[in-house]
Amino acid sequence: MGVVSSSSKEKVLEAAITLFQVKGFHGTSVRDIALKANVNVALVSYYFGGKQGLLEQLNVQFLEGYIQAMEQATEERLGQSSHEKLLAVMEQVLLYEQQAPSLARLVLREMTLDSTLVREIMSTYMRKEKHLLETILRQGMGNQEFRKQPLDLLLLHIRTMMTMPFLQPHYLRELYQLSVNDPSFIKRYMVHVNDWMAACLLKKPIASSRLVIHLDS
Amino acid sequence: MGVVSSSSKEKVLEAAITLFQVKGFHGTSVRDIALKANVNVALVSYYFGGKQGLLEQLNVQFLEGYIQAMEQATEERLGQSSHEKLLAVMEQVLLYEQQAPSLARLVLREMTLDSTLVREIMSTYMRKEKHLLETILRQGMGNQEFRKQPLDLLLLHIRTMMTMPFLQPHYLRELYQLSVNDPSFIKRYMVHVNDWMAACLLKKPIASSRLVIHLDS
Repeated sequence: MGVVSSSSKEKVLEAAITLFQVKGFHGTSVRDIALKANVNVALVSYYFGGKQGLLEQLNVQFLEGYIQAMEQATEERLGQSSHEKLLAVMEQVLLYEQQAPSLARLVLREMTLDSTLVREIMSTYMRKEKHLLETILRQGMGNQEFRKQPLDLLLLHIRTMMTMPFLQPHYLRELYQLSVNDPSFIKRYMVHVNDWMAACLLKKPIASSRLVIHLDS
Repeated sequence: MGVVSSSSKEKVLEAAITLFQVKGFHGTSVRDIALKANVNVALVSYYFGGKQGLLEQLNVQFLEGYIQAMEQATEERLGQSSHEKLLAVMEQVLLYEQQAPSLARLVLREMTLDSTLVREIMSTYMRKEKHLLETILRQGMGNQEFRKQPLDLLLLHIRTMMTMPFLQPHYLRELYQLSVNDPSFIKRYMVHVNDWMAACLLKKPIASSRLVIHLDS
């Protein structure tokens, strides 16, 4: 196959993201991807073992970074309150999604399916996500920061808040004139999230000044 | 085309729901649908004008009922509190989705796309949904039941809570052992929703006895 610039690989990934969104996974051929990326068809198979391999690669790439963003946010806040940890995790995930909104949407959409790939993703990345959030919530309930309540629906609620805007960006834009790609969107959204947190999760309200400091940092 | 039993039409719709979910819209041919429904290929075109027509029919059919469920819930509670209206709307939408979970998932998944069909759906059904929820929220804020807060993110939050379980049923099942098709699921979920409502929306908490009566009715 000879020497191939790493940008060819990137071009193939970019082309796949676009085409999977527009024509769907089943409606996109390897030939379409190669054509759009302006590379040889054989290259796609060589690098990714075909279309399914490409989809897997896109999912894994996104979700590795997704979990990393969550882990980093908690690690950076070692010793801080569970409330601050959870806020940081949610904000970092949103910022991460905002960096690659098309890829985020592709992966989040994929996860609404019931495929072998999704089952594999769930048994690895989604289990990690669940464990990470559960740990923060249990700590917060243990140290009297959070109100005691059943974990399952609470976890799902938090996860949905972190992903909804990037799964339905056009819906937010068309009906609510909210652009998820606008940097100010995440700040505004985090105010709403924190409002939810203060009302539904925290035992005692915190001083609003601390919130402002967090959101501006 | 002669006399065709209405069940043939139903069989085509059922087959399309299944195939669109498994193979995707682009990966499904009219021939696949006819084969699965055990009808003549020409029948699919005759009834629905092809695959795109079928998808539109499924979306419109689901969303007509979806909006109807919301409207009926509010009409039945004329003169009752905004809180009771909103609870009823959310519960009725969930019950409606539970009646046809595969179709619900298909339509909710479709709505995460940015297609011509979705833009048409948004300008009709989603605009109606938004108006209906907005009316309840404005009333509730006006009559001092609900806390004043920006409408856009609040509306999105409510909409997401109504749709999330049926967009990701396998996720809830695999990771949280929650079966959205179980009748008890909606009761449990509505307790969580009402918990959110009491904390984030209501100005004053209501007596919990009223909530129990509502959920058992």
